Amino acid sequence: MLNVPDNRYNYLMEIKNYKKEFIYSYSLGAFPTIELIKHKKEYIIDIYIHSSFKNEEVLSFIKENINKDKIKYNDKLINKLSPKENCFVIGIFNKYDTNLDKNKNHILLDNPANMGNLGTIIRSSLGFDILNLAIIKPGVDIFDPKVIRASMEAIFSINFKYFSSLEEYKSAYKEHEINAFMLQTNNTLDSFKFTNNLHTLTFGNEATGLDKKYLDNNSIIIKHSKNIDSLNITNAVSIALYEFRKQIKNN
Amino acid sequence: MLNVPDNRYNYLMEIKNYKKEFIYSYSLGAFPTIELIKHKKEYIIDIYIHSSFKNEEVLSFIKENINKDKIKYNDKLINKLSPKENCFVIGIFNKYDTNLDKNKNHILLDNPANMGNLGTIIRSSLGFDILNLAIIKPGVDIFDPKVIRASMEAIFSINFKYFSSLEEYKSAYKEHEINAFMLQTNNTLDSFKFTNNLHTLTFGNEATGLDKKYLDNNSIIIKHSKNIDSLNITNAVSIALYEFRKQIKNN
Repeated sequence: MLNVPDNRYNYLMEIKNYKKEFIYSYSLGAFPTIELIKHKKEYIIDIYIHSSFKNEEVLSFIKENINKDKIKYNDKLINKLSPKENCFVIGIFNKYDTNLDKNKNHILLDNPANMGNLGTIIRSSLGFDILNLAIIKPGVDIFDPKVIRASMEAIFSINFKYFSSLEEYKSAYKEHEINAFMLQTNNTLDSFKFTNNLHTLTFGNEATGLDKKYLDNNSIIIKHSKNIDSLNITNAVSIALYEFRKQIKNN
Repeated sequence: MLNVPDNRYNYLMEIKNYKKEFIYSYSLGAFPTIELIKHKKEYIIDIYIHSSFKNEEVLSFIKENINKDKIKYNDKLINKLSPKENCFVIGIFNKYDTNLDKNKNHILLDNPANMGNLGTIIRSSLGFDILNLAIIKPGVDIFDPKVIRASMEAIFSINFKYFSSLEEYKSAYKEHEINAFMLQTNNTLDSFKFTNNLHTLTFGNEATGLDKKYLDNNSIIIKHSKNIDSLNITNAVSIALYEFRKQIKNN
């Protein structure tokens, strides 16, 4: 872990592209930075604004919510951190831990490998009101700016936690019924009846799917034609979220 | 449009990255090339195989299906055309036209802007047995190798056609009921009843959605929480495909 040195100026001058080892990360762009301020203000180190940025609504929102001494102007730094598309506002924040809510439904991803997919799943998950995400390691780094970007800022509104193994997750959330989405079962989603239990909708790695240790009577398959090998993972998750919400709404 | 010159050798030596103006395109990799051979063999110009490629199953499949004089070895050319990940087999094929089946359900995309999204939608569409795709122009180029790649080869199994306008599409397929997925309606997908009509599941551009001219009694909204602005387009399409198939299966 890199530490933030006492001398902040030097620390910021050294900032380059994000690395997993950093104890801080970046919200790149006005929209993610607004959501960062709304939901995780306490972790903000600094907000950088480009001198050419003139959106008054955003500027007043930042000024009303962030202490003056944390608002900085440094075009060179912003240009350095920007992805391809220009961004004019950057938030620098300490990475944080969250806990999952024991009384809510969860999503569990076993070793997600693609940052864009993880972000997109977080966005859909928030869209269908599942706000607790468990990740079985390894799995990509949820704080990578690419994940934040793909989540369309949703990441700042959800709880997430990494676990070393399925067993560790299970022993922490004994009440949850694990619904493993996998091809090796005959329970099709369109005939499956979700009970009143707490549920953990569970999905595997993009390339390998879920290990057969997940297979039990609560496993579910989303049937598709034989003309494709599998559904895209983010599509499979959203279909599951849609059907799940449809059913529990009526429970 | 570039023409394929009579002198094929020169023509191939000039091949660089794909451009929309080309009259041919590439299947980059063994899997897409196998699907190209299975479904669109008549359009193949040449198949290039890297000298280090030793998968006997794939090699025999190619040799059984493709005339010897169309199988070429040119590592330099393959390296030139390869995307980041190495690929060892490349198909070069003439772009082709297809017609939509008047008696089947369709998907319609109005000006899709992202190649990865278009490919992913084609894959899901094939997975849920909708094999006819209409695209309202402009919209990205369906033959771009990025689309082919994202479709996981599904592109060679579907029919597609570009239209200049919604009106042009409608006058060609008068029997189809257009179900426009948009936020401006109160018909929610989870309460919508698909009739026995032929249907056209219709989706807008990633940034702008569908114009309000699409709004009518057959429009549908996929409800999501206020915490997100919209669902990812490929996720919205798969949810729609899932619910649609679930219902028409029981009709």
